Amino acid sequence: MTEGPTRTAGSDRPEAGTGAPAVTFDDVRDAARRLAGVAHRTPVLRSRTLDARTGTQAFLKCENFQRVGAFKFRGAYHALSRLTPEERARGVVAYSSGNHAQAVALAARECGTRAVIVMPEDAPRAKRDATAGYGAEIVTYDRYTQDRVAIGRRIAQERGLALVPPYDHPHVIAGQGTAALELIEETGPLGALLVPVGGGGLMAGCATAATALVPGIRMIGVEPEAGDDTRRSLAAGHRVAVPVPRTIADGQAADTPGELTFPINQRLVDSVVLVTDDEIRTAMAFAFERLKIVVEPSGATALAALLAGRLAAPPARTGVLVSGGNIGLERFRELLG
Amino acid sequence: MTEGPTRTAGSDRPEAGTGAPAVTFDDVRDAARRLAGVAHRTPVLRSRTLDARTGTQAFLKCENFQRVGAFKFRGAYHALSRLTPEERARGVVAYSSGNHAQAVALAARECGTRAVIVMPEDAPRAKRDATAGYGAEIVTYDRYTQDRVAIGRRIAQERGLALVPPYDHPHVIAGQGTAALELIEETGPLGALLVPVGGGGLMAGCATAATALVPGIRMIGVEPEAGDDTRRSLAAGHRVAVPVPRTIADGQAADTPGELTFPINQRLVDSVVLVTDDEIRTAMAFAFERLKIVVEPSGATALAALLAGRLAAPPARTGVLVSGGNIGLERFRELLG
Repeated sequence: MTEGPTRTAGSDRPEAGTGAPAVTFDDVRDAARRLAGVAHRTPVLRSRTLDARTGTQAFLKCENFQRVGAFKFRGAYHALSRLTPEERARGVVAYSSGNHAQAVALAARECGTRAVIVMPEDAPRAKRDATAGYGAEIVTYDRYTQDRVAIGRRIAQERGLALVPPYDHPHVIAGQGTAALELIEETGPLGALLVPVGGGGLMAGCATAATALVPGIRMIGVEPEAGDDTRRSLAAGHRVAVPVPRTIADGQAADTPGELTFPINQRLVDSVVLVTDDEIRTAMAFAFERLKIVVEPSGATALAALLAGRLAAPPARTGVLVSGGNIGLERFRELLG
Repeated sequence: MTEGPTRTAGSDRPEAGTGAPAVTFDDVRDAARRLAGVAHRTPVLRSRTLDARTGTQAFLKCENFQRVGAFKFRGAYHALSRLTPEERARGVVAYSSGNHAQAVALAARECGTRAVIVMPEDAPRAKRDATAGYGAEIVTYDRYTQDRVAIGRRIAQERGLALVPPYDHPHVIAGQGTAALELIEETGPLGALLVPVGGGGLMAGCATAATALVPGIRMIGVEPEAGDDTRRSLAAGHRVAVPVPRTIADGQAADTPGELTFPINQRLVDSVVLVTDDEIRTAMAFAFERLKIVVEPSGATALAALLAGRLAAPPARTGVLVSGGNIGLERFRELLG
């Protein structure tokens, strides 16, 4: 995906490839100030069973308890909070069938602006209802014949709306980084932090915050085995695409790293480890039965990596980003039946 | 059940019916000091969806995140922490097929003493394994032909062990009260507090703490419709028994209020409301899909009462005790299938 002439949210977006980091620790701290009192300061859970099983003290940052049920609200709200008055008067557009849709819809309501969400016409009823419930206008498309990016851009241009990308935007990245900032403020220094990687926005933000707070912290990305585009890209030294991933971790089905997120992750991430769908299921069941929390597949990959022993030489203390909990009872039964 | 000559845990147990309250607010504060750093200070969750649906700001004290997955650890550990050195050297015995078994087993390990747990021989494998995993000795009985109370007492007398009752003991009650103490310390004054009632220990402790901290707070007990012994007893002015309750809320299947808990609840509880098994299921599903937490049936009754509109004239701010989360995936599917 290359950047066209579409207006993106906020007017101070640096260009990719200019050399200056797209996001700094100060940006994350600014985002935290804007999010205070709006986003939940989510709890950090501990489990002695988990510690005993994995040989590290694990600190689970539970973004499944975030508003809209996922970390996505942080980035979306932060991006929208920085719209100019003119942009706010016109509104925003986003394309997503997942958590980003609800995040932008709710953030728009909170910021007093309007959102148009481009969703596949076969998106789950519950997701459509939730998004519409936040007051967003929903535009549907046929995902077998139509291109959502083109539709999003056309709407942005026709109506003069700012496009809010799901990860490849400095304000979105800085917002996501507040999850790691809060975690480390609460726990103190950690030896490693495990973060799910899809488009790489959560990781880029968290790595920016965590490495500033704890020099030497190991930043470990986690991808589903079928969607290892970031691991391959890091190995290749440039962004490579993989076939559209077939995985239960639908929130991590990106086929290529972001243009802005990749250089940050290239600089700050130590390694990327992979988990299978079965390992994700095991982690979801462990979360249910032992931790008493509901975690969606993409939200469970960092925990899955820890449980599956993917963290080599575990440090004394490890942070684990549990990134979302949006899964209906029916789908949950289907996956863990 | 009347008290025989069996030794119960701790030596300063007041007799029922002497007029002095069996448990004071100072007892709860003492318990909190003993539990500090041992029990989890469980999170208090909020949900705007829940608030919008119920017309009150709800504060959910999540004891499903407590050690052993339920509030029971508070009372069990507190009781065991107050054993005399002689009692500790001998050990304790408890009868339970549920959360109290695991709570006493873990508390015994933490206190450096031994526990014998009397369990039905058909208790779920997971519960037996968990209890044994904490190092307890398990004695099984046939629940169709044998009396667990008699077995527990015989073991206590033969081996000189202290019996740790599940609710009818001042140290147990004071320990359970720390849940409300923590909640109100975090939230400030509440207009009402909804608490599940089985034997009445959690309610007696919580009412002792909450009414001391917030004079005028409405203490609302919640029972499953089929097990309304406390509601009937309060109406009658004395303890009455109901037929053994048939309800999915197995943790609240008491058929009569406790001898010590009842006078406390008679003095401090404003009313008891009832919920059906279907309302409990709805609350469990709401907890899963909207709150992202796993709650067992008896843990969900206070939330069920709030969702079902049982709280008349809701105050601005309401506390809700979510008392436990011990339910396996299989049973969960069975109940919500």
